[in-house]
Amino acid sequence: MKQSVTVLGLGNMGSALAGALLDRGHPVTVWNRTAEKAAPLAGRGARLAATPAEAIAASPLVVACVLDYDVLRALLEPDAEAVRGKAFVNLTSGSPEQAQDAAEWFGARGADYLDGAIMTTPEGVGDPGVMFLYSGPRPVFDAQEATLATLGDPVYLGTEPGRASLYDAALLGLMWSAMAGWLHATALVGAEKATAAEFTPVAIRWLATVNRFLTRYAAQVDEGRYPGDDATVDVQISVIGHLIDAAAARGVDNALPELLKSTMEQASAAGHGSDSFASLIEVLASK
Amino acid sequence: MKQSVTVLGLGNMGSALAGALLDRGHPVTVWNRTAEKAAPLAGRGARLAATPAEAIAASPLVVACVLDYDVLRALLEPDAEAVRGKAFVNLTSGSPEQAQDAAEWFGARGADYLDGAIMTTPEGVGDPGVMFLYSGPRPVFDAQEATLATLGDPVYLGTEPGRASLYDAALLGLMWSAMAGWLHATALVGAEKATAAEFTPVAIRWLATVNRFLTRYAAQVDEGRYPGDDATVDVQISVIGHLIDAAAARGVDNALPELLKSTMEQASAAGHGSDSFASLIEVLASK
Ligand SMILES: NC(=O)c1ccc[n+]([C@@H]2O[C@H](COP(=O)([O-])OP(=O)(O)OC[C@H]3O[C@@H](n4cnc5c(N)ncnc54)[C@H](OP(=O)(O)O)[C@@H]3O)[C@@H](O)[C@H]2O)c1
Ligand SMILES: NC(=O)c1ccc[n+]([C@@H]2O[C@H](COP(=O)([O-])OP(=O)(O)OC[C@H]3O[C@@H](n4cnc5c(N)ncnc54)[C@H](OP(=O)(O)O)[C@@H]3O)[C@@H](O)[C@H]2O)c1
Repeated sequence: MKQSVTVLGLGNMGSALAGALLDRGHPVTVWNRTAEKAAPLAGRGARLAATPAEAIAASPLVVACVLDYDVLRALLEPDAEAVRGKAFVNLTSGSPEQAQDAAEWFGARGADYLDGAIMTTPEGVGDPGVMFLYSGPRPVFDAQEATLATLGDPVYLGTEPGRASLYDAALLGLMWSAMAGWLHATALVGAEKATAAEFTPVAIRWLATVNRFLTRYAAQVDEGRYPGDDATVDVQISVIGHLIDAAAARGVDNALPELLKSTMEQASAAGHGSDSFASLIEVLASK
Repeated sequence: MKQSVTVLGLGNMGSALAGALLDRGHPVTVWNRTAEKAAPLAGRGARLAATPAEAIAASPLVVACVLDYDVLRALLEPDAEAVRGKAFVNLTSGSPEQAQDAAEWFGARGADYLDGAIMTTPEGVGDPGVMFLYSGPRPVFDAQEATLATLGDPVYLGTEPGRASLYDAALLGLMWSAMAGWLHATALVGAEKATAAEFTPVAIRWLATVNRFLTRYAAQVDEGRYPGDDATVDVQISVIGHLIDAAAARGVDNALPELLKSTMEQASAAGHGSDSFASLIEVLASK
């Protein structure tokens, strides 16, 4: 018999979470402010609770995914004792500070609390290739890991409750940078009539090579030494100049490569001209 | 018997190219301005020519990798007729315009010309996972593909000679954006004592998910329609605000996410608030 799970919040994401649990045979109890959203899940076997407290009472494990932490707090406070003795996994997005506050609130009410972050859109839920990040007490994670694996690959980040939220923010920043770089590149080749469909598979293959650079540079960052054997900041300042010229000649906005160039120039001015690109972290982290 | 190949230029990259060809049993003739750099290759069986023309005469296929296009032209001009009837593959980095000029110069002298770009550092040469980009006449590429596969995976981009250089610039821009985003993310989690070695494997896994977004958005870019079903620009403007707050609170420089946010705001102001992130290309490409 699979573990019973309660899901609080049936927006796009909460509905996907409940659906994945049902698909894998878990008894699921759901609650949502707007009860109508539970109908498709009820049709698949979910039990609909009338209140958050009734939903929580139904299962030893509760997964919450609502708009934000304030909404979550507001829906629990009328009957806060309901969480006592439960494992409570909060997949609502928020800041590390909110996760820390939530961990205290749940701890004070006798609940085992894990904070989590979902690294996919709803259609990726249930795919073992997508990551769900968790932070909080290790024994709580270990006890729930098998059930959480139903939602995606559970990645444990340590006891600090805010760690999952912090990684979430950091990873989204990486995503926007990579996507903006890809759009600039796509605009550049598009100016010469290459389609995004032609360019993107090449870009994705190239990112596999870039991943190797990241792995090499991660060791440099941790050591605080950035040997520029592969490519120095000064050489890259000159090469990015060619990119900027090529893009400018084709009417492509250059704010992004201009910023990257000026960050490289700051690193060079700070004495990192013969170091690798990883030395730019000295510029970013020192402010 | 493997095809004979001449390599012009034995800097870090040219030496790696000649070495990979020797490793796979090709008879290799080399020339370099500074002849001493040929010694290690000669010890592995390469023949050292006294002049560029003598080197070119030795093989039907010539691979050049020198500092820049001006250097290449200067070393060929004294005996430009040497290239007649040869397949000439130029892996020197340059602009699309330089590639176009070179294609005309070689064409006028009866050579089959391919322009190329090397998407790796020298230690990656010979790895079938790394890309070498080529553009120029398809039959020339087809005739040389098997030999070029010795250097890395040959990716053919079409007849336009400047295409390999254009992709090269575009892909380097993507690399810098992704690496800068990774450094910002690493600085952010580093402020809470996560090491780069802990964070980077998670970042690399996340980039695999981001690759799926790029594939989805490539189709949107080509269609010029950007449905925001997965995540709208306006929602992302609010979420990146949280990233900026989290980074600012930890003393991390925010120039990169601030620029990304302002680009999103431009897209929103241009009517793309309910569209996907891919709609930002309208801001980048319209200048
Ligand atoms: N969608 C994604 O791709 C994605 C990815 C990663 C993380 N997340 C995070 O997942 C969480 C939910 O996102 P979503 O996409 O499911 O959003 P959504 O479709 O807008 O759903 C929001 C949920 O919050 C509930 N809610 C909002 N205000 C409420 C209130 N005052 N009282 C009670 N319930 C309230 C909604 O209930 P009603 O149905 O009654 O309105 C609904 O269940 C967010 O924190 C989001 O950042 C989403
Ligand atoms: N290294 C990389 O990671 C990498 C990656 C992709 C593309 N590339 C491109 O590959 C090309 C070569 O790079 P590299 O790393 O091999 O550079 P390098 O080690 O500096 O070698 C430069 C080469 O150019 C020759 N050269 C320079 N000035 C010359 C002149 N006036 N006359 C004749 N020969 C001259 C050098 O000859 P001497 O030995 O006599 O100085 C040497 O063979 C460049 O276009 C570079 O952008 C390099």
